[in-house]
Amino acid sequence: MVEALVWLGTWVFALSGALKGVEKGFDLLGVLVLATVTAVGGGSIRDVLVGTLPPRALTHEPLLWSVALVGLLTFRFHPRVQALERPLYYLDTLGLGLFAALGAERGISAGLGPFGVALAGALSGVGGGVLRDLLAGEVPVILYRAGDLYASAALLGAFVVYVLHPLSPEGALLAGSLATVFLRVFGRRLGLRLPTPRG
Amino acid sequence: MVEALVWLGTWVFALSGALKGVEKGFDLLGVLVLATVTAVGGGSIRDVLVGTLPPRALTHEPLLWSVALVGLLTFRFHPRVQALERPLYYLDTLGLGLFAALGAERGISAGLGPFGVALAGALSGVGGGVLRDLLAGEVPVILYRAGDLYASAALLGAFVVYVLHPLSPEGALLAGSLATVFLRVFGRRLGLRLPTPRG
Amino acid sequence: MVEALVWLGTWVFALSGALKGVEKGFDLLGVLVLATVTAVGGGSIRDVLVGTLPPRALTHEPLLWSVALVGLLTFRFHPRVQALERPLYYLDTLGLGLFAALGAERGISAGLGPFGVALAGALSGVGGGVLRDLLAGEVPVILYRAGDLYASAALLGAFVVYVLHPLSPEGALLAGSLATVFLRVFGRRLGLRLPTPRG
Repeated sequence: MVEALVWLGTWVFALSGALKGVEKGFDLLGVLVLATVTAVGGGSIRDVLVGTLPPRALTHEPLLWSVALVGLLTFRFHPRVQALERPLYYLDTLGLGLFAALGAERGISAGLGPFGVALAGALSGVGGGVLRDLLAGEVPVILYRAGDLYASAALLGAFVVYVLHPLSPEGALLAGSLATVFLRVFGRRLGLRLPTPRG
Repeated sequence: MVEALVWLGTWVFALSGALKGVEKGFDLLGVLVLATVTAVGGGSIRDVLVGTLPPRALTHEPLLWSVALVGLLTFRFHPRVQALERPLYYLDTLGLGLFAALGAERGISAGLGPFGVALAGALSGVGGGVLRDLLAGEVPVILYRAGDLYASAALLGAFVVYVLHPLSPEGALLAGSLATVFLRVFGRRLGLRLPTPRG
Repeated sequence: MVEALVWLGTWVFALSGALKGVEKGFDLLGVLVLATVTAVGGGSIRDVLVGTLPPRALTHEPLLWSVALVGLLTFRFHPRVQALERPLYYLDTLGLGLFAALGAERGISAGLGPFGVALAGALSGVGGGVLRDLLAGEVPVILYRAGDLYASAALLGAFVVYVLHPLSPEGALLAGSLATVFLRVFGRRLGLRLPTPRG
């Protein structure tokens, strides 16, 4: 079940990377690079930081090939993919919650404290998107989109995993993922916004 | 004593990251991300390169929380912080010298030669600022500010540590830090400039 | 022989980094940073990913000093260096092929599968150039130059190494390097282009 959701989340991230490449007018290789980096970049940064080398994604051949396939399909059928905005929003949120929670788990295994675990989780969730934006020549969207609680939702979810993990590892994973999803989705509904600097 | 200076230097770096985020109009999360990355990014890159995983900063909870607090205070009181330009210049220079010297020490422990040690030291001193600038969508300031000997001062300090370390590790740390501070401060007073390309 | 070609390839990469720094008007330090990062960045990223820490380049003092010298000479004599466009194109292609093939070999040693090996090889070949472009504030050229098969040539060469390695490690290295070189050079002659997104 978790495994199936990880594949799904990875594909949605690959798709978001490929779409960015299409939007930028990159060639096929550029689109596939952005798909791959967005899909496996966050988890790979986390693996480097906690010392899991090579990063797991780099040794997971079926996942890598499927990511390339998603990139190829997005390259070919991008107008239809872009039209799926609403379901993609929810799948992306699901992927974010799941990756943040799983990343937090790896941080706990590596002996990190609460702040470190929250960072490891958030990096797993948003690191691929940050690399995508940097490669595309843009300021990472997580740094300024006050009205969409994205990285903050991932931080919260990872923190929830840290707190609940001693009670039940599986329960913590579930609660952490849901915390991220709820904060993002209801934050949007309720119009929650992060503050921006005054003046 | 060294420990106290490391905390101080880390906070000044956090502050410089947070100010950049404020200047860019990032939201609270973006400001905190820039504060954290600037404060612990250089040392973390160095730790990854010399194989100290997870990077020490990621397991140093009190430091991480204090960095977030500095980011939060800068976010809230940024006009007053910006007014402290002169003392911040000196504290930043002190942090640079200290981090470069400590980074050089880690490079020596990892068995690097003189060039590698100078790189490890300079990366420790300026790596966080480079990440800050890249995330903010800017060309890293160390690459072109010919009139402010910053990264070159860090390189010199690290090299001094390498040369003096066999004689006295503590003395090398002190002399290296001071070499960086002197080169930056007196370089400015004397109007020293790095050359730029002709034509 | 391979060793001599590695030095040559590293110098050409250093030169391309230094030229980018000159073009951007960076100061001497910026030019040397770009030379170094371009020359040893790709191999270092690969070494981090496969867990060879510190990266080999960081411990290879003569290579590092020679890279700095190439950067210095390029800084001083850049108009003459720029005039060598044609031979530099071929030397750069040779370096690309060699680094991709050697990177693929390291990927095989680290136990990666075909996709992972192709990534490790391509990263070795193009990673330094990607870092160079990012530091210079530009979108990495490999992502959009449809008419110059560069990263795709490196991917193909690395894949050839993966396929032939069980038969003969030396033969695989040679065939992989040549595959990259041929695909780039003949791709240009034949006007091969990667597709770009429609619409």
